[in-house]
Amino acid sequence: MTAPNRATLWGRTLVDELTAGGLEAVCIAPGSRSTPLTVAFAEHPDVTVFSHLDERSAGFFALGRARRTGEATALVCTSGTAAANFHPAVMEADQARVPLLVLTADRPHELRDSGANQTVDQVKLYGDAVRWYAELPEPEATERKVRNLRTTAARALAETVGVEPGPVHLNCPFRKPLEPTCRPGDVSEAFGDTLAGRGRSGPFVETTSGTRTLENEQYDALVEALERAERPLIVAGPADPADLTTLDPDTVVRVADRLDAPVFADSLSGVRFGAHVDAGDGASSSVVGGYDSYVDDLPDPDVVVRFGASPTSKPLRHALRDADARQFLIDPAGTWREATFTATDLLAASPGPVFEGLLERLDAGAETTANDEWLANVQAAERRHWAIRDDALAVDTLEDEPFEGAILASVFECVPETATLFVSNSMPIRDADRFARPRAADLTVLANRGASGIDGIASTALGAGSALDTDEPLVLVTGDLAFYHDSNGLLAVDRCGVDATIVVLDNDGGGIFHKLPIEEFEPPFTEQFKTPHGLEFEALAELHGLEFERVDPTGFEAAYQRSLEQAGTQVLAVEFDAEASHRRREELREQVRDAVRSTRDA
Amino acid sequence: MTAPNRATLWGRTLVDELTAGGLEAVCIAPGSRSTPLTVAFAEHPDVTVFSHLDERSAGFFALGRARRTGEATALVCTSGTAAANFHPAVMEADQARVPLLVLTADRPHELRDSGANQTVDQVKLYGDAVRWYAELPEPEATERKVRNLRTTAARALAETVGVEPGPVHLNCPFRKPLEPTCRPGDVSEAFGDTLAGRGRSGPFVETTSGTRTLENEQYDALVEALERAERPLIVAGPADPADLTTLDPDTVVRVADRLDAPVFADSLSGVRFGAHVDAGDGASSSVVGGYDSYVDDLPDPDVVVRFGASPTSKPLRHALRDADARQFLIDPAGTWREATFTATDLLAASPGPVFEGLLERLDAGAETTANDEWLANVQAAERRHWAIRDDALAVDTLEDEPFEGAILASVFECVPETATLFVSNSMPIRDADRFARPRAADLTVLANRGASGIDGIASTALGAGSALDTDEPLVLVTGDLAFYHDSNGLLAVDRCGVDATIVVLDNDGGGIFHKLPIEEFEPPFTEQFKTPHGLEFEALAELHGLEFERVDPTGFEAAYQRSLEQAGTQVLAVEFDAEASHRRREELREQVRDAVRSTRDA
Repeated sequence: MTAPNRATLWGRTLVDELTAGGLEAVCIAPGSRSTPLTVAFAEHPDVTVFSHLDERSAGFFALGRARRTGEATALVCTSGTAAANFHPAVMEADQARVPLLVLTADRPHELRDSGANQTVDQVKLYGDAVRWYAELPEPEATERKVRNLRTTAARALAETVGVEPGPVHLNCPFRKPLEPTCRPGDVSEAFGDTLAGRGRSGPFVETTSGTRTLENEQYDALVEALERAERPLIVAGPADPADLTTLDPDTVVRVADRLDAPVFADSLSGVRFGAHVDAGDGASSSVVGGYDSYVDDLPDPDVVVRFGASPTSKPLRHALRDADARQFLIDPAGTWREATFTATDLLAASPGPVFEGLLERLDAGAETTANDEWLANVQAAERRHWAIRDDALAVDTLEDEPFEGAILASVFECVPETATLFVSNSMPIRDADRFARPRAADLTVLANRGASGIDGIASTALGAGSALDTDEPLVLVTGDLAFYHDSNGLLAVDRCGVDATIVVLDNDGGGIFHKLPIEEFEPPFTEQFKTPHGLEFEALAELHGLEFERVDPTGFEAAYQRSLEQAGTQVLAVEFDAEASHRRREELREQVRDAVRSTRDA
Repeated sequence: MTAPNRATLWGRTLVDELTAGGLEAVCIAPGSRSTPLTVAFAEHPDVTVFSHLDERSAGFFALGRARRTGEATALVCTSGTAAANFHPAVMEADQARVPLLVLTADRPHELRDSGANQTVDQVKLYGDAVRWYAELPEPEATERKVRNLRTTAARALAETVGVEPGPVHLNCPFRKPLEPTCRPGDVSEAFGDTLAGRGRSGPFVETTSGTRTLENEQYDALVEALERAERPLIVAGPADPADLTTLDPDTVVRVADRLDAPVFADSLSGVRFGAHVDAGDGASSSVVGGYDSYVDDLPDPDVVVRFGASPTSKPLRHALRDADARQFLIDPAGTWREATFTATDLLAASPGPVFEGLLERLDAGAETTANDEWLANVQAAERRHWAIRDDALAVDTLEDEPFEGAILASVFECVPETATLFVSNSMPIRDADRFARPRAADLTVLANRGASGIDGIASTALGAGSALDTDEPLVLVTGDLAFYHDSNGLLAVDRCGVDATIVVLDNDGGGIFHKLPIEEFEPPFTEQFKTPHGLEFEALAELHGLEFERVDPTGFEAAYQRSLEQAGTQVLAVEFDAEASHRRREELREQVRDAVRSTRDA
């Protein structure tokens, strides 16, 4: 079918190329200037279109989907402020290495800076936050230009999943007619069937992207250090989306076992949960998760191998900073993601292959040099941590001393074996990191830990949920401020057909500020930091047609189980006093530390 | 009082300097890194702090206030995606020339690009959308650095209201302690009383900003052209905030009267409403507002004098494009804001002084050369326009043929003599421009016509409302998509204590797309363009504690009057069928055109 005009040809060719390259989904916000793109996406059989009304939420929805799949999701908006509304999600995609393909429609060149309506400067709009920026030339139905368009589209998609995956921005100027209105002579018949493609399936340019691995001799320093280590430690930080598919946690565990090294597995690392975790009490495995409580009371590790982003646990970050250790940092992009500036060796390679190479090279038969007590001590501390947590979760105790961490513990403990959990920034992710025990279950745990904003939380979660099989539950745990911040994102439940169990930890404001010294300064503490709002979220749930239940901390597990077994989306709101929760966290941490110290000193 | 540490000194000095320079209000979103700024603003007696939870809404609220006052409003956020959430408002402020001072807290230099949490690249975050970008150096309690800080603060404020007013971005890195925690020796006693100011009131550097006026001989071409014109036309486009204070519409009318020229006054020009408008039937004045209907059927003007931004009326823009006329464009910034590229003369000077100069130079006694019929024809067409509109508003007619424009007509007609009206983009502003009759009332009419987005509408309106005397009503007219888009902005009603009458024209989706050719293409019209959402806004109103009433088009005036007389905030939702409204608009336009044509041809 010959395109009725050049704008339509342009949109169709671009979308044809992107889908040939494997693009499966696009989030579109309505607009006029983007009509050629919208129409082309809507008519293409191989791409799922998610329609959003708020571009900020659209951006985060696309981010969430790309985060869950590891593959690019596209975004389309019209010209003007619409494009600026994508900026927060683009920023997060940059920091968190999430492949995102941003297509912003623009007005033709001559209208820029002319005072024309809805015309702003979209050139390099997201600055250095994108891996690649390109501006499409004006649509024209010539072989050369269409070839250029296909090449640009193929490249854009490849750049989102390059050595350092991330966002790519294509700015797309169009002139009228934008609709598929027939304009005789605008497009020759030759473009009818081929859209100037190669007449075969697959992309115009097939990108084969190599993996960054170490040469033989590049392992030497690492192997030698580990073989001599007395207190080796593996730290698995929050995973990049690519790690979740290219890194087999079982390989990490086997390397750890060969070294008698513990693995400090961040709740977002992809290593804390999975079949590789010891199915027993979860604490005889080398994979541990309670270190936030006890890392201060362990002896320093002497060799650290770290991969993933900066760990969620601040005590761990500080321990790594203060340790007198040789620290190897494995990063596929080699971008020096190391904010304590204590790493001694940077290995610019993919962690998956590096661990496979290590397993081959570490002598399976040899005695490990690791101090006998090192791993045993860590595991003993780990057992203390979970025992104390379990005591705190007992119904009687919880009734007297409710705290937000108890909800995170239950959320992870009661969820079925296969599930995706999205945890908001601020306190929920910290509580998950502290109170979610390693488990032999296929849990995909996600958060926006790139820039760690509290914006776009619901949308990111629902975007991740849009990629799940129908029988895999999606759970979102959020604080009240984050829930309010992306209240518009809830529209996706209905519009995009994604169900979730949404747990709102409602402490009426910014509970995290109770952790900071500003708590002591009143005013302005309550009015400018804690910022209580008194919002009753039941009305918000009603606006979006969601079931709403207010539950007590002790009644949470039952309500949560019910929701997991139910269809539809339920919002479970649990009220807490932020200050009391914060005190309880500190108490529990002190209890673990006391126990660890008394064992150590005995 | 000596500052307890350098971060506190830095925050206090910056805020002290900004308030000395006249800054009266700041919008703050809670965050940790911004603590020194937040604390300093909160403790300063001369500045009003508006606390917001969503940075996007905060940005638009500040924009609205600055738009209404013409003076800078400041914005404060923490590091990370928070700053990106300001981007849409910054973009609008750029395009609409609104003074906005954006203060983004940042982490210290060494943490940038280190993988540290909540650390992103904020350097020149808004690209060329700001008039000035500067990064503060690290806080240090030395005379020279503090002098630099004061100079930077004074300059930042001055740049927001320079030759082309607009946004300014100061990126502000801080290191811990961020709170006013005492750190002995960090700040010497000398900074206690003075904060290194000059020990006198007023800013550290007093900026005296000249006005751009024309030299004597620079009037020659303009005066000569006008004195010879047969069909002179003055076009008052949407006003910059500065125009609303520096341009006296009475002077424009007096010039027009001397020339027998009509003034095509955009509803946003500051010229359509005011004491200068003839108090009679509003159509014997030279100020006319119905030209959208009849401009196509007038003879071409031969000399056009235009000021303000590009007119809202598309028929007017096209008529100017197609006219064989000498077109003078008066723009204080001289930025060639002229998207039809037909202007022949650009006068880079402030419109106010130019019209005063014209009035002096146009010979008061001389016969005007204007064609006798020119003004009379325009005024006759104008009378037709309003007569036909009035017929359409008659209750019986309206009952049979309701249309959105009727609401806009009533909104402007029934509002008290002094009021501020904020009108959303998309259809409401177009309907206001068509159906709001010139009136001798002190109406301040505002919209976000810089980039013309439908984001941030409620926040911008409430921000404008925050600057009003308590007895001046604030009215917001919005479509349903815009109402949903900035639903978070409604929190400001309670948190910032601003009341409004909020009129929601609910046609369940993007009614404007019925105006476009895409309407003919189904699919994807309904799903991707019209995007019906079925949201029941009553729940949204309830979430924010607002009164809600669903009214019929014929019952609107009564409900509107009640709301204007009441305290508190009322949401009046009026349901429409977008397609029917669009057809009705077209019908009315055709009726006026037929009437004008039949008179002309008679």
